[in-house]
Amino acid sequence: MSYTETKSALVLKRLESDRKGILSRLYEFVRHPSVGADPAYADGMRGAQDFLLGRLEAIGLRNVRRLEAGGHPAIYGEWLGAPGKPTFLIYGHYDVQPPDPFEKWSSSPFEPTVRNERIYARGISDDKAPSHIALETLGAFLQEEGSLPVNVKVMIEGEEETGSATLGALCRRYADLLAADAVISADGARWRADLPTVTVASRGNAGFEFTVTTACKDLHSGRYGGAVPNALHIIAELIASFRTREGGIAVEGFFDGAEPLHEQERTALARIPFDEEAFYAELQTAPSGEPGYTALERLWLRPTLEVNGLWGGYTGAGSKTVIPNEAHAKVTMRLVPGQTPEHLVEMVKSHLLRHCPDGATITFGKPRGGSRAYLLPSDHPLLAAAEHALTETLGKAPIRVRMGATLPMTDIMARELGIHTVMFSFSTSDEDYHAPNEFFRLSSFDDGLRAWVKLLRRVGEQREADYRRP
Amino acid sequence: MSYTETKSALVLKRLESDRKGILSRLYEFVRHPSVGADPAYADGMRGAQDFLLGRLEAIGLRNVRRLEAGGHPAIYGEWLGAPGKPTFLIYGHYDVQPPDPFEKWSSSPFEPTVRNERIYARGISDDKAPSHIALETLGAFLQEEGSLPVNVKVMIEGEEETGSATLGALCRRYADLLAADAVISADGARWRADLPTVTVASRGNAGFEFTVTTACKDLHSGRYGGAVPNALHIIAELIASFRTREGGIAVEGFFDGAEPLHEQERTALARIPFDEEAFYAELQTAPSGEPGYTALERLWLRPTLEVNGLWGGYTGAGSKTVIPNEAHAKVTMRLVPGQTPEHLVEMVKSHLLRHCPDGATITFGKPRGGSRAYLLPSDHPLLAAAEHALTETLGKAPIRVRMGATLPMTDIMARELGIHTVMFSFSTSDEDYHAPNEFFRLSSFDDGLRAWVKLLRRVGEQREADYRRP
Repeated sequence: MSYTETKSALVLKRLESDRKGILSRLYEFVRHPSVGADPAYADGMRGAQDFLLGRLEAIGLRNVRRLEAGGHPAIYGEWLGAPGKPTFLIYGHYDVQPPDPFEKWSSSPFEPTVRNERIYARGISDDKAPSHIALETLGAFLQEEGSLPVNVKVMIEGEEETGSATLGALCRRYADLLAADAVISADGARWRADLPTVTVASRGNAGFEFTVTTACKDLHSGRYGGAVPNALHIIAELIASFRTREGGIAVEGFFDGAEPLHEQERTALARIPFDEEAFYAELQTAPSGEPGYTALERLWLRPTLEVNGLWGGYTGAGSKTVIPNEAHAKVTMRLVPGQTPEHLVEMVKSHLLRHCPDGATITFGKPRGGSRAYLLPSDHPLLAAAEHALTETLGKAPIRVRMGATLPMTDIMARELGIHTVMFSFSTSDEDYHAPNEFFRLSSFDDGLRAWVKLLRRVGEQREADYRRP
Repeated sequence: MSYTETKSALVLKRLESDRKGILSRLYEFVRHPSVGADPAYADGMRGAQDFLLGRLEAIGLRNVRRLEAGGHPAIYGEWLGAPGKPTFLIYGHYDVQPPDPFEKWSSSPFEPTVRNERIYARGISDDKAPSHIALETLGAFLQEEGSLPVNVKVMIEGEEETGSATLGALCRRYADLLAADAVISADGARWRADLPTVTVASRGNAGFEFTVTTACKDLHSGRYGGAVPNALHIIAELIASFRTREGGIAVEGFFDGAEPLHEQERTALARIPFDEEAFYAELQTAPSGEPGYTALERLWLRPTLEVNGLWGGYTGAGSKTVIPNEAHAKVTMRLVPGQTPEHLVEMVKSHLLRHCPDGATITFGKPRGGSRAYLLPSDHPLLAAAEHALTETLGKAPIRVRMGATLPMTDIMARELGIHTVMFSFSTSDEDYHAPNEFFRLSSFDDGLRAWVKLLRRVGEQREADYRRP
């Protein structure tokens, strides 16, 4: 056993012997109902912030404080005692999704409960356990060795579940404080529980809402039916016009800038074990989408255009013979590298305006912010270290995968701080983290602690200069 | 002045001298908030029933009673002292639309208020003033002459605004009591305030609700987007498939049985003064519908297929990146003579099932009842009498028109009692009767009293045998 291996074993041993304490602190964290979207949970947000301020102090970080940029504050702490070593911004978030609908939970959402080697609680998987694992690992190093292998700046965000609305402003405001060589994210769920993977790319997103208006008011379907336009038919025809008969996207300019698929990438994807038939059987539906692509290509390498909400007219019980004069839809897109939210939104809006028939008008809602897609360079030194740590922890080299979802944080960090992010979370996509009965696997908890020790040790062998290439 | 003219003048004089009393009784009727759709208004329904029972007794009808068939009762009374003369079922309704939204009313909906020669109140136009006019006319005859020119059976319904749900059952249950030669309806608004018309036809209706289901649950648009069907896109494509590119109806079998348009009918329609440009300008929209037809033909002579409500996915504030697994729509049709609700519903359902793509299923809601279109024979003796009475009252012969809306009552009377209905209402289509600030013109009130006197006198010159042709 080498010197660093022996040292790591001591850190790990400390973590293992303190398992009960680590879990009880995690439960304390989870009991704060830190739902950022709902002002009714303001106490829970404050409770989680205070808990983190206390934890960062307790594990030995310095300059512990709230960072504020108009929204929910982020919690910050640092340890910068490793000159010449790289500096990592360790990212996580303490805000959680709303627990509703309450009645679908088998146990109280804010009282962590262990069943079948899983901890059930709102926010346990997204992102309290993964963030807590990172903090506890830092604590074990500092307690055991009095130092960390690298410099770290910890930032635990409070707005991830509400779209990281002020994270960009916060990065600009505290640009010097947050300056680092790369981000290690404790957020960003792993793809599958049955396959070691490391996620190297995510899709971007963009979206807007629009309204179709026909006559000046709702009209009676008897008195006017047959001679006037119906906003619901028009919005249906507009949405239908988004797609080709074969299932592709028919919006002019939609693929502008999107990087073409490389044969090499498609081959790599085809090698990933993925059972399409089981995938659709579990969802109880059939394949759908752009012709000429596999399911994984559609999910990871191609942009999408989806209506997420659609409404108009009478939607109550029974029937009302109205010709609605207004119809509404919410639309979002997922972007691939090369596309920008602004251009894509513009193309879809132009498509709608071009297809809007006489007698109707379209108005657009306030645009929501968007994120570009994110792609980690394949030779990034932090990626190499993460793959090494995962291989050592899981006994098997992880496969590089992409994700179809969006982590706005990765795009914000790249744009505002100019650094890359490696996702090193130990939650898994199947843990119902935006649904009732969110859970986190106890086995992931132990894997996570081991992997973080190995990762920190591995990057400790790197030099600051490795991250400063031209 | 002939003998009957002199007699009519005396009845009219009595009505004129009692104008204040007639109006005050109308206001008493209107103050009962008889909203049949909402159980919270049960007292108002009972109040209106008691008011009518009292009125029918007071004007001298016999056998005054409630008729019940499981829903809100109808109020009945009769006078059968004219042997050899025809017997008319006089129809009206005492239930009214809900007054909501309250805040849009300029005066309290259940406190009649006169402004600009109009009475404002919920139910005043639909159908309390028109029903009241009929009753007061009967009363004036009975007071002045001790008899009526014809036999009458008065039935004031309590379920018109909720689709006359038990009217069919009530007609079957009281078939002998209600037997008559024809129906004079005090319901069925006149087309326009600026043109004397008599409505000789109405379209039928039918409808159903359906749901499109794709996956077993809502799916995250990042994790699944691009590879799974979206129920909102599918329902939009299904609705878009209802219509041809030119605006016609593309559903196979939709026009089965519909009588073709006769050139003569089109010519008659073309002669009706109707300003299409003004019609669309007022509605702030543009013409729409089946190619090759005028607006009036589309409104009166052609069947329609309209989506009245459409909903699915996230419809709250902000955005939620969900791929909805369910979408819902409410559909209604308007029928022309020759079509049946059952066949039309079947054709549209078959169309939906044929166009439903793989990975999705369609389920249908409980069917709602439907009505066939109604067409009064052009040589019906009651129609001739009504035209005569209107010509005398308004100084101008009325034009025969159709209506695009549906009066289920006409179809029910034809089917259950085997008799035709002439609409002899003095409300007008523009009186906002399903909207806030419903009103009734005081001029229509005076016209109505005069016209009812003339109508009753005119049919009094007819014989029972005129209505009993093979």
